[in-house]
Amino acid sequence: MSSNSFGQIFSVTTFGESHGPAIGCVIDGCPPGLEISAEEIRRELLRRATGRSRHTSQRREADDVQILSGVFEGRTTGTPIALLIENTDARSRDYETIKNQFRPGHADITYMRKYGFRDYRGGGRASARETTMRVAAAAVARKYLAQGPGIEIQGYLAQLGPIRTDTRQLDWDAIETNPFFCPDPELVPELEKFMDQLRKSGDSVGARINVVARNVPAGLGEPVYGKLDAELAAAMMSINAAKGVEIGAGFRSVEQMGTEHRDAITPDGFLSNHAGGVLGGISSGQDVTASVAFKPTSSLRIPVRSIDIDGKAVEVVTKGRHDPCVGIRATPIVEAMMALVLMDQLLRQRAQNPERA
Amino acid sequence: MSSNSFGQIFSVTTFGESHGPAIGCVIDGCPPGLEISAEEIRRELLRRATGRSRHTSQRREADDVQILSGVFEGRTTGTPIALLIENTDARSRDYETIKNQFRPGHADITYMRKYGFRDYRGGGRASARETTMRVAAAAVARKYLAQGPGIEIQGYLAQLGPIRTDTRQLDWDAIETNPFFCPDPELVPELEKFMDQLRKSGDSVGARINVVARNVPAGLGEPVYGKLDAELAAAMMSINAAKGVEIGAGFRSVEQMGTEHRDAITPDGFLSNHAGGVLGGISSGQDVTASVAFKPTSSLRIPVRSIDIDGKAVEVVTKGRHDPCVGIRATPIVEAMMALVLMDQLLRQRAQNPERA
Amino acid sequence: MSSNSFGQIFSVTTFGESHGPAIGCVIDGCPPGLEISAEEIRRELLRRATGRSRHTSQRREADDVQILSGVFEGRTTGTPIALLIENTDARSRDYETIKNQFRPGHADITYMRKYGFRDYRGGGRASARETTMRVAAAAVARKYLAQGPGIEIQGYLAQLGPIRTDTRQLDWDAIETNPFFCPDPELVPELEKFMDQLRKSGDSVGARINVVARNVPAGLGEPVYGKLDAELAAAMMSINAAKGVEIGAGFRSVEQMGTEHRDAITPDGFLSNHAGGVLGGISSGQDVTASVAFKPTSSLRIPVRSIDIDGKAVEVVTKGRHDPCVGIRATPIVEAMMALVLMDQLLRQRAQNPERA
Amino acid sequence: MSSNSFGQIFSVTTFGESHGPAIGCVIDGCPPGLEISAEEIRRELLRRATGRSRHTSQRREADDVQILSGVFEGRTTGTPIALLIENTDARSRDYETIKNQFRPGHADITYMRKYGFRDYRGGGRASARETTMRVAAAAVARKYLAQGPGIEIQGYLAQLGPIRTDTRQLDWDAIETNPFFCPDPELVPELEKFMDQLRKSGDSVGARINVVARNVPAGLGEPVYGKLDAELAAAMMSINAAKGVEIGAGFRSVEQMGTEHRDAITPDGFLSNHAGGVLGGISSGQDVTASVAFKPTSSLRIPVRSIDIDGKAVEVVTKGRHDPCVGIRATPIVEAMMALVLMDQLLRQRAQNPERA
Repeated sequence: MSSNSFGQIFSVTTFGESHGPAIGCVIDGCPPGLEISAEEIRRELLRRATGRSRHTSQRREADDVQILSGVFEGRTTGTPIALLIENTDARSRDYETIKNQFRPGHADITYMRKYGFRDYRGGGRASARETTMRVAAAAVARKYLAQGPGIEIQGYLAQLGPIRTDTRQLDWDAIETNPFFCPDPELVPELEKFMDQLRKSGDSVGARINVVARNVPAGLGEPVYGKLDAELAAAMMSINAAKGVEIGAGFRSVEQMGTEHRDAITPDGFLSNHAGGVLGGISSGQDVTASVAFKPTSSLRIPVRSIDIDGKAVEVVTKGRHDPCVGIRATPIVEAMMALVLMDQLLRQRAQNPERA
Repeated sequence: MSSNSFGQIFSVTTFGESHGPAIGCVIDGCPPGLEISAEEIRRELLRRATGRSRHTSQRREADDVQILSGVFEGRTTGTPIALLIENTDARSRDYETIKNQFRPGHADITYMRKYGFRDYRGGGRASARETTMRVAAAAVARKYLAQGPGIEIQGYLAQLGPIRTDTRQLDWDAIETNPFFCPDPELVPELEKFMDQLRKSGDSVGARINVVARNVPAGLGEPVYGKLDAELAAAMMSINAAKGVEIGAGFRSVEQMGTEHRDAITPDGFLSNHAGGVLGGISSGQDVTASVAFKPTSSLRIPVRSIDIDGKAVEVVTKGRHDPCVGIRATPIVEAMMALVLMDQLLRQRAQNPERA
Repeated sequence: MSSNSFGQIFSVTTFGESHGPAIGCVIDGCPPGLEISAEEIRRELLRRATGRSRHTSQRREADDVQILSGVFEGRTTGTPIALLIENTDARSRDYETIKNQFRPGHADITYMRKYGFRDYRGGGRASARETTMRVAAAAVARKYLAQGPGIEIQGYLAQLGPIRTDTRQLDWDAIETNPFFCPDPELVPELEKFMDQLRKSGDSVGARINVVARNVPAGLGEPVYGKLDAELAAAMMSINAAKGVEIGAGFRSVEQMGTEHRDAITPDGFLSNHAGGVLGGISSGQDVTASVAFKPTSSLRIPVRSIDIDGKAVEVVTKGRHDPCVGIRATPIVEAMMALVLMDQLLRQRAQNPERA
Repeated sequence: MSSNSFGQIFSVTTFGESHGPAIGCVIDGCPPGLEISAEEIRRELLRRATGRSRHTSQRREADDVQILSGVFEGRTTGTPIALLIENTDARSRDYETIKNQFRPGHADITYMRKYGFRDYRGGGRASARETTMRVAAAAVARKYLAQGPGIEIQGYLAQLGPIRTDTRQLDWDAIETNPFFCPDPELVPELEKFMDQLRKSGDSVGARINVVARNVPAGLGEPVYGKLDAELAAAMMSINAAKGVEIGAGFRSVEQMGTEHRDAITPDGFLSNHAGGVLGGISSGQDVTASVAFKPTSSLRIPVRSIDIDGKAVEVVTKGRHDPCVGIRATPIVEAMMALVLMDQLLRQRAQNPERA
């Protein structure tokens, strides 16, 4: 079982390093007959791309994805779909200086301790560049989910450092109109100001991303270790910089009373959704909701104490192009992981319970 | 890939319903030669058992575990270890009244929507009784982890409803001395009082459990989808009633600055542990820390609106023996899932990187 | 992925040693709503049982299977189905003499070399007793396959040592009327005579079992590594004593010309079936046919040179109750493995191609 | 679990169609630090290449493999190794005529029945071109196996139609000196003559390939469903055109007596190897031997009855470049599958039994 693969039936295997020749993925198990084009995948990738605004890394990623297999005459054939993006703007020289140093907060030291050897260029395999292929693969899944059960997935910025979105009244249409995926258009100037100051300071900050999946049919999720919420938790926590995951009321459940938390049911549906659309690991038919915490990026021009590969003390200063808030670009990735989980669970539900999927 | 199985190399498959003839598990992939007895497993089960205090369900579970295979002359042989506990105190009649009703906050409605058919007795497969076998299987893993790399795992109650433990100064020795797994002995009277009032009120409350694994060797975790933290997130979220998971600083990361969050490194080790012992999905050698939110139990004698299996409105009142705070008994289960993840990742690390495991 | 598990969606995990307390299995992924009883499973087990005739081991296996979970009110619920058989007639004393010896042709030496430790009683986990649970699990699969697509599976003895069945004219109704599963009733006296002489001589002999699955829908099989024939090959070769597997024309293909082997197609169907019902790893709608070679049992009272666990030369004589031709009892096991493969592939086909499954 | 993936720890996922833009694979789980170059992989591919002699398809495959990831400064890093070969000599026009026809003996009809849609160009995913990537991935495995335990794998032509190699006296050095991988140099003229006549006749023939792995350590193989021989059987049967697999004595076991088959053991080792190096699914330390039957190719210029996609009768004549004996080129593929199985089992053995791997 490849650890670079995600999903059991709709299975995505990604490969590639930040500064290697290319990154790519192989999607296996996609139902045949789905119309899909490289252009559609590119559109999804654009939402995630760096260089979208002055608030994200200025590295320009063309993300010119090619479909190498599994699609014939514009439709999926049921065989593996390979997607490839060549790395074009990979300035390896930026990283030569930290070749022998471990950047705190990074995977440098753990890759070295695990493998005894590492591709130090730009984080190598641990780079957020890997998430590009999650978004690419999810573009296929999202199209299928939208055409079949009509599932729609929307993420948004819920908090950026100290600035919180009022999640009780969201302007869903505003999300795509600003580079923050912020659902409160009035908050955008404040976010811009905060980010400008942050960039000047050389520091970084964390963020919280929420995601909602609508029209999820009841019955998705495989008890007991393949629960829908368990797989969502793994999916979200596998994203670079993620440190926490909540389903529904999440950590607010700790202080809730049972009479408050349990969502009453009427013939017309549930009266609340503290469960986040999942009961006993299985979707209830309500919106599936999750929230993900992203840590602040650790690549800063502000020096920090560290060690080199010989264990000696060094001071690390990271140059190069980095996002002061990785959470800003995380929204499409969080959506992608929601899509991959739902797609796989939908196909698994069909296998065991075809009448109800 | 069985959805009732957990782990790739050290693989645990559980089975059984709350009120069926028995519950059990099969552990596959355990290294041979480990001394283990049913008595040792029973001791772990006692920590989780109901009826330990007046604050948990008064159902008496003998948990008289038998080893059916895989152990010969007191040692594991490398073949599957089957564990079995017969259900002795299963009063099915308690559940007849809700046979045709869906209890809000429970898996009744989702099992019905998924499978079209359900064992309604005591939650059936969705009962917390299933977690017994996680603790049993983990008893084997914990012994191996302790003898090999010396890994020790300790969980504790971090918050019960509004009452928080001061996590800056923990009295580790106190944890096992009270029925709450509370590391602050002075808080115990307050917890008892709160629980007594809660029980009288008929309501329930949530809880937060923290867990720490010490002496985890660096290098455990399989990037990118088999990350140590991703698998911990899935493991914890797969526990009944779990709604949120954090690694290290968790959701506090959202408001942290990069200069605060990133853990500086010196030749003598890390200067802080906001990462929770995991960088890039791989253990760093620091303590691995996680925190899990548990929702309040939904089985209350306080009525709630719901529907029956024909979709008609009903009022549900749950009788029977239920914990007013499921979090109280969750500590051994959280520890168990930490153990199962670490055990599996340790064996996987050996496969690819034998020199470093 | 447990190596004691078989199947991806309909997943069977077996456990237990020949002379331990019990053997059992866990079936995960079975569709809900299937009526099944312990009695039905027992009937299948009887076909495999030892002691059916004087030509098989006289060890009496009650095979009194219990259903421990996953079945409620006579129907499967979709949750794991645990089956258990207690070992009652396990005379361990028979094996004390070979505790420190390796029996040639047996797994004694390889288990020792793999695990460094072994349960030597009766072959332990390597005993053919394990196959009991394959037959038990397959009883569930066979009922589902028969009710759904109408798949029927029939195996038979094609060759016993030098005695060959004429496979061109099979009397299907005769198979169950003799202890050899021989489809040629006129051959039975010859088989009996051969076996009587063999038993007297103390030697053993091999056998070939053929199996046919009828009404297999087209489209089952997952290219390229999950091909139907590849999984059948693994399934059959995983049976104790199996040394060869053929699909369709099998090794006869080596001398065939393309004009002979390729099965012409007409609007009314295929004109021959050298393919054995599988093209490109996918079922064609024709009968799926396989043939399996079983070696002669190695447990003989005729002495053989071997070594003990210290590497010293010994002479091994096996006492105890052993089948002089393990192939005689293999027919139900071969059928079982065919059923497990088809069941799993049927559910997998549904997941990706629901319109065509 | 992707059905286009092979192996659990050393996991290979292949993709690509015969006439699509490219074929490729992703190898996950390779131990880090192995020196490997594209040039080394190309050398292995040359052994399999078409156009090596007049007896194989004259399609010229450059097989100019690129390493896209997972190798840094000439050594594997432990992250996924992606290999890619662009399809350059893909004359799709050859296949337009059979676009709407099903070629007997081919996967055309089964892909259509499974997926309802197919890439008809050159067999699409069902083309033997897919096996290129097996050989490429195995080049990495073989280097590791040779450097570590010193495992060496050698296949050879054992039979071509009616012409049999005398397997009792093999000239191992002769195998690579002729295009047939024939270990009997004196047989080569006869093979050449036979093939020339065959090509003229327009017909095709089957073949048998044997393979031996030497220096396989004892202990590889995972009972009971992940047995070494079971996985070899699946691996071999997953090769295009394979119809039968034997381990050790294979089908000869059927007529053997136990006294003949069981391999006696002395302090100096086994006295024979009817087991083929596997006992109870675990390697014994002897040579691991297997034999594979390949059917004659079905693509002939000799007409055959078939149907079109509307179910109407047609006469099919296959033009294009096809091998009159696919078995001739199968030797490197059989070796590749042996290597992939052994590599994966070696890493799995380490996970559970590190002291003995």
